[in-house]
Amino acid sequence: MKKLIQDVALYRDHDVTEHQNIAIDGTKITGFPENPVLSDYDEVIDGQQMLALPGFVNTHNHIAMTVFRSYADDMQLMDWLQKKIWPAEDKLDGDVVYAQTMLGIAEMIRCGTTSFADMYFFMDDVARAVDASGIRACLSRGMTGITPSAETALKENKQLFLDWHKKGDGRITVMLGPHAPYTNTPEYLSRVVDLAHELGAEIHTHLSETKGEVENIKKQYGKSPIAWFNDLGIFDVGCLAAHCVWVDDDDLDIMLQKHVRVAHNPGSNLKLASGFAPIAKMLKKGITVGLGTDGASSNNNLDIVEEMHLAALVHKANTLDPTVIPAETAINMLTEGGAKCLGYTDIGKLEAGYKADITLVDRSGLHWYPKHDSLSLMAYSANSMDVDTVLVNGEVLLRHKEFTKLDIEKIKAEAERTKEKLFAQI
Amino acid sequence: MKKLIQDVALYRDHDVTEHQNIAIDGTKITGFPENPVLSDYDEVIDGQQMLALPGFVNTHNHIAMTVFRSYADDMQLMDWLQKKIWPAEDKLDGDVVYAQTMLGIAEMIRCGTTSFADMYFFMDDVARAVDASGIRACLSRGMTGITPSAETALKENKQLFLDWHKKGDGRITVMLGPHAPYTNTPEYLSRVVDLAHELGAEIHTHLSETKGEVENIKKQYGKSPIAWFNDLGIFDVGCLAAHCVWVDDDDLDIMLQKHVRVAHNPGSNLKLASGFAPIAKMLKKGITVGLGTDGASSNNNLDIVEEMHLAALVHKANTLDPTVIPAETAINMLTEGGAKCLGYTDIGKLEAGYKADITLVDRSGLHWYPKHDSLSLMAYSANSMDVDTVLVNGEVLLRHKEFTKLDIEKIKAEAERTKEKLFAQI
Repeated sequence: MKKLIQDVALYRDHDVTEHQNIAIDGTKITGFPENPVLSDYDEVIDGQQMLALPGFVNTHNHIAMTVFRSYADDMQLMDWLQKKIWPAEDKLDGDVVYAQTMLGIAEMIRCGTTSFADMYFFMDDVARAVDASGIRACLSRGMTGITPSAETALKENKQLFLDWHKKGDGRITVMLGPHAPYTNTPEYLSRVVDLAHELGAEIHTHLSETKGEVENIKKQYGKSPIAWFNDLGIFDVGCLAAHCVWVDDDDLDIMLQKHVRVAHNPGSNLKLASGFAPIAKMLKKGITVGLGTDGASSNNNLDIVEEMHLAALVHKANTLDPTVIPAETAINMLTEGGAKCLGYTDIGKLEAGYKADITLVDRSGLHWYPKHDSLSLMAYSANSMDVDTVLVNGEVLLRHKEFTKLDIEKIKAEAERTKEKLFAQI
Repeated sequence: MKKLIQDVALYRDHDVTEHQNIAIDGTKITGFPENPVLSDYDEVIDGQQMLALPGFVNTHNHIAMTVFRSYADDMQLMDWLQKKIWPAEDKLDGDVVYAQTMLGIAEMIRCGTTSFADMYFFMDDVARAVDASGIRACLSRGMTGITPSAETALKENKQLFLDWHKKGDGRITVMLGPHAPYTNTPEYLSRVVDLAHELGAEIHTHLSETKGEVENIKKQYGKSPIAWFNDLGIFDVGCLAAHCVWVDDDDLDIMLQKHVRVAHNPGSNLKLASGFAPIAKMLKKGITVGLGTDGASSNNNLDIVEEMHLAALVHKANTLDPTVIPAETAINMLTEGGAKCLGYTDIGKLEAGYKADITLVDRSGLHWYPKHDSLSLMAYSANSMDVDTVLVNGEVLLRHKEFTKLDIEKIKAEAERTKEKLFAQI
């Protein structure tokens, strides 16, 4: 199946060039023909008024937590977790998770997201939703060594890898998901590392999210969470680390040396009052950074364009330097940086041979006028509802803001049904 | 002309009640009939799936700066002003300002804004655009006592008041606009205060926006900008002060005592790296706070819903307290707080006798599911493209996301034409 995106503004090699064409064959980009013969293609997508970007990557999510969106806000973290989230999560089942994952996937596609990293429970149901929806994802089972589910979790994450890694037309990959330093023990984490080596799996975890976490780990183990995880060998297998808000220069040195990739979640860090991750410093050092929404209960949406906008804004004020995270850097975190975070080597750029994960952004909105600079307009003026067309693995999932594959009314109804079912038990 | 908004979720008295009706007669809300007779109304607006909120207020803008959107970003403030903005502003004319103001007004209406405060040049052209568009505005002529335009500016602001205050069906009011402490002299500011007393006009200004401004004013006058403006009598005539980022406890005491109303512009404060205004502290003290976008060149859009979202998020991280600026407080700044900032006494609430400035927000988007709490969803999950219908002074300006009164394609073309004209001279 050959597709052509015709007459589009193309972001490539740090520049936007108007009136370009993108040729796709099957799952891949094949080139940028100057004078394409339309009859050579099975489908021609009109790119007029559009900006073509590599598909957006959401590097950290707990997608089924959509069920808790607007359920509990404006609380102290431990109150929120202990009184609201954990008791409710205790009643989750695969039916709820599947329906809420489908809701989250639809929301992410609508916002231009073509791949995401997820860590949660009932991950087989999440994988089925990813498979059915056409989106790309890197999945992990959240594992907490200090709870009764420790053994089950390890077993389930292994099984998830065996069942789903590189499956779903290659759209699904699997990592291991030890939850965080404060929910694990050295013994359990060592077993996770052993399993990672055994399977050839990478690790997705939360690291140095709050000031309290870092203080407690230092008290308990005499070193920072980053240094501790490094000593445990977690970074040797390849690691995607969410948050990294409270990291010092020694931590940053370790992260650079061990290629720790950072999932930066500005919305969640702001809303939960975690703080400001030193993203400008990380980028200057050469650390890979992507963007994430975190779960919808601490955000409260899965809008990755908004995360880019937040990332481009908040670090300027926090460093009192208006030149940090310029427009293109923000867009890079949204696309190429995100793809690197998830371990992809042929995603994140619009280049021949790369996977056809492409987001077309409509530039006809009032906030796109007058037109000086498309990258600035994308980073600072755009919103996610400008996303017009989304392709994943060469398949069109959103066309002119309409879903091609997902039944949205059914997804909304299922989200409501499963939410009612869950909360009837709480 | 009688209108009915039928079967809508009504935000009133700190609560959202489903399946309510809002009756409007002429420019005002008349009540909330339980069983309205449809034939009594000239127009019935379907409110199903919608949340009715008081119209959103943008308390600080330089609207015609839309022309500079995406023209220059990611620069140090003085570089940006001296090399980019000021030379370009020097070439502005009434034609450019009218066209760019229309663009900005359309963008604001699309985002649910029903009134805004503006400070710029060629304000007669701005007033004509406000008059023609149907939106509500509080206008002032930016006045800098230290530039050659000082005398002209004072004359023009006076004339603006005489020509336009309470005109345009009462939708236009006029304030005096001394630009800022650092662009004025005590003598000039005293003349502004005299003029304010003479006309019965209030004042709109920038105050304590950057750390450098506060340091310089303290060096020059031995007191903070707030204390200095207080001594000059500026707060005695009623004052809308934009930014107030670098204010200490003594400043806050003065602001409370003198009823200084604060236009909080989180997007601009972040992007220009001005810092974090102590909004939680202000609100706790009882100071009136509204939200503003500032000009599109330092934001880079006029999306007041995004400002609310930013305001709800950034202060949590900056104070490391997730309970500050809860959802309803954010919505209050967007609506009632903003209306108070602009000096309105019959706008900002949905109450009988209040002006029919109403924004209906569509709750059918994926990010509004599942539904636990409409105020949380509005504050944390919504985006401006959810705005469905906008009424100002009882007139429908946006219906189901389509403009009723403005020719959008013409507005976009005029924005491009005048941008080309302006930049041909630079």
